[in-house]
Amino acid sequence: MDELVKVAVDVMGGDNAPAEAVKGAIEAVNEKENLQVLLVGQAPLIEKELAGCTYPKERVTIIPAAEVIETGEPPVTAIRGKKDSSIVVGMKMVKNQEADAFVSAGSTGAVLVGGQVLVGRIKGVERPPLAPLIPTRDGVSLLIDCGANVDARPSHLVQFARMGSIYMEHVVGIRNPRVAIVNIGAEEEKGNALVKETFPLLKACSDINFVGNIEARDIPNGDADVIVCEAFVGNVILKLYEGVGNTLISKIKGAMVSSVRGKLGALLVKPSLKKVLKSFDASQYGGAPLLGLKGLVVKCHGSSKAAEFKNSIIQCIQFKNQEINGKIKDHISGNVEEN
Amino acid sequence: MDELVKVAVDVMGGDNAPAEAVKGAIEAVNEKENLQVLLVGQAPLIEKELAGCTYPKERVTIIPAAEVIETGEPPVTAIRGKKDSSIVVGMKMVKNQEADAFVSAGSTGAVLVGGQVLVGRIKGVERPPLAPLIPTRDGVSLLIDCGANVDARPSHLVQFARMGSIYMEHVVGIRNPRVAIVNIGAEEEKGNALVKETFPLLKACSDINFVGNIEARDIPNGDADVIVCEAFVGNVILKLYEGVGNTLISKIKGAMVSSVRGKLGALLVKPSLKKVLKSFDASQYGGAPLLGLKGLVVKCHGSSKAAEFKNSIIQCIQFKNQEINGKIKDHISGNVEEN
Repeated sequence: MDELVKVAVDVMGGDNAPAEAVKGAIEAVNEKENLQVLLVGQAPLIEKELAGCTYPKERVTIIPAAEVIETGEPPVTAIRGKKDSSIVVGMKMVKNQEADAFVSAGSTGAVLVGGQVLVGRIKGVERPPLAPLIPTRDGVSLLIDCGANVDARPSHLVQFARMGSIYMEHVVGIRNPRVAIVNIGAEEEKGNALVKETFPLLKACSDINFVGNIEARDIPNGDADVIVCEAFVGNVILKLYEGVGNTLISKIKGAMVSSVRGKLGALLVKPSLKKVLKSFDASQYGGAPLLGLKGLVVKCHGSSKAAEFKNSIIQCIQFKNQEINGKIKDHISGNVEEN
Repeated sequence: MDELVKVAVDVMGGDNAPAEAVKGAIEAVNEKENLQVLLVGQAPLIEKELAGCTYPKERVTIIPAAEVIETGEPPVTAIRGKKDSSIVVGMKMVKNQEADAFVSAGSTGAVLVGGQVLVGRIKGVERPPLAPLIPTRDGVSLLIDCGANVDARPSHLVQFARMGSIYMEHVVGIRNPRVAIVNIGAEEEKGNALVKETFPLLKACSDINFVGNIEARDIPNGDADVIVCEAFVGNVILKLYEGVGNTLISKIKGAMVSSVRGKLGALLVKPSLKKVLKSFDASQYGGAPLLGLKGLVVKCHGSSKAAEFKNSIIQCIQFKNQEINGKIKDHISGNVEEN
């Protein structure tokens, strides 16, 4: 039998705290037997949410934390000052190996700072990237880095490529994932200084399946499995995905209901449309792991509902069982060996 | 009566050369009386395309150019080597004031290099940006710079903001256009080194309506009229717009025809869907001007059809009549005066 995986969940973070985080955690333990959830936050609130729920009591534990880090707070000050906040308490549990992973929909800045300062980096990892899965035509790709490290250097991007490749292969299950770097043309000589310097380094990596440049146009088509880019660019990609999708969908809906003919048609196509929208909604894949830390930290969208919390928590089991951090350590420390 | 505006058209550039460029040029002269088109390219091919067309002979002139610069050619070598190419011949006409503008769907690299080397920059302009209009929920925004100058400096971005603002106000007709800089958060202290350094400079500009940061998510919603960014980021935005749109539409179409109910609905919503797609298709707005040159250079998509050539050519009339370059010169040279 698999070992029990312990996931600390920040129930105070996000727009729908604490209800949706607690609900998602309960759904996860009810679905997976080898999972224990540690609900971190204000105990009376958590108890209220748990009342009336059915779940295995021995695998759900309340970890009291009285303070809450708000979204607008300067991250470094918040992490240093609020020792009894759900983020600090949860991350310290990961550091002390009382938990295998920490899942939060709270302040992105605080989660990034806390990950580095409290959990700490795996030896050799220069910068831990935030790496969400994004929907493509027929599947998902990993976008790495998508907001953790602006003004990154070429060596950081090479580490992102390696960590992303390990994640896609062993957590998502894509064999020999295609790794590409975001560029403004398909030719090798194109790009800005960062990309031009990084390209030959990636080409020289024998432990990843580097396929060259990818233009932003080809990302939604799924032309690569691991999309390597600097955090500013990654953040723009992630947010524009959402923005273009939302605007286009709202325009289509608006146009359909502007005529009787369209209204009737809209009723008929509604189920198909709904299916497409769901498959193109990034939140269904769970939160984004912050890779390269001594333990797993997963950042969920601020607007997460129970389903995203549940998916994020379940993702942690695979991460632990596949010993992702051991693999990252082996590859990053320079002892690159193919299995 | 308005002065005759002379537009040189590269009929050898793009995937549909020479037919669509010639067709678009003829449609433009037939629609606008104050327009003369100079068709630059291989004369026998142009004569063949013109045969059978009805148009005012005195306002259509063939300018022979025997060579063609291909898309894959290194731009600097091509511009230097192919003196009798349509791009070099057309740009020299702008330089010598034999033409007011040059429109091309040819090699982007060659057009950018040619613009700088052959046409030349307005005194004081550090880098000429490429600035396409992109569709938004209810209109268009100007994306500046979208591929001309990677690794730009803060002073360049400030000039982009000024030039873009002039263009949106006087060519597109948006009064007091809202200028925003692309960033990864809405707060002033967010961003990479370039954006952090540029933000206070933009804030200090009294001649533009600077509204602060814009996140990529809010671009399609039309939250700003002039979207300032560095070329790498701009290129990613432009291409991802296209990529997400295409993938989403193809998924919607696929889902609809997967059931009988959906098929029937699809037939009914087809006209509405088509209207939305057209309004969200960047190519309908014509090509992107390369701003800040002594004369106007417009770069069309490589896949341009007659409609895009026509719109790009007609755009040149407004550009000339509004004396955009005079306005750019006034603002950039430091003599900033409000009208």
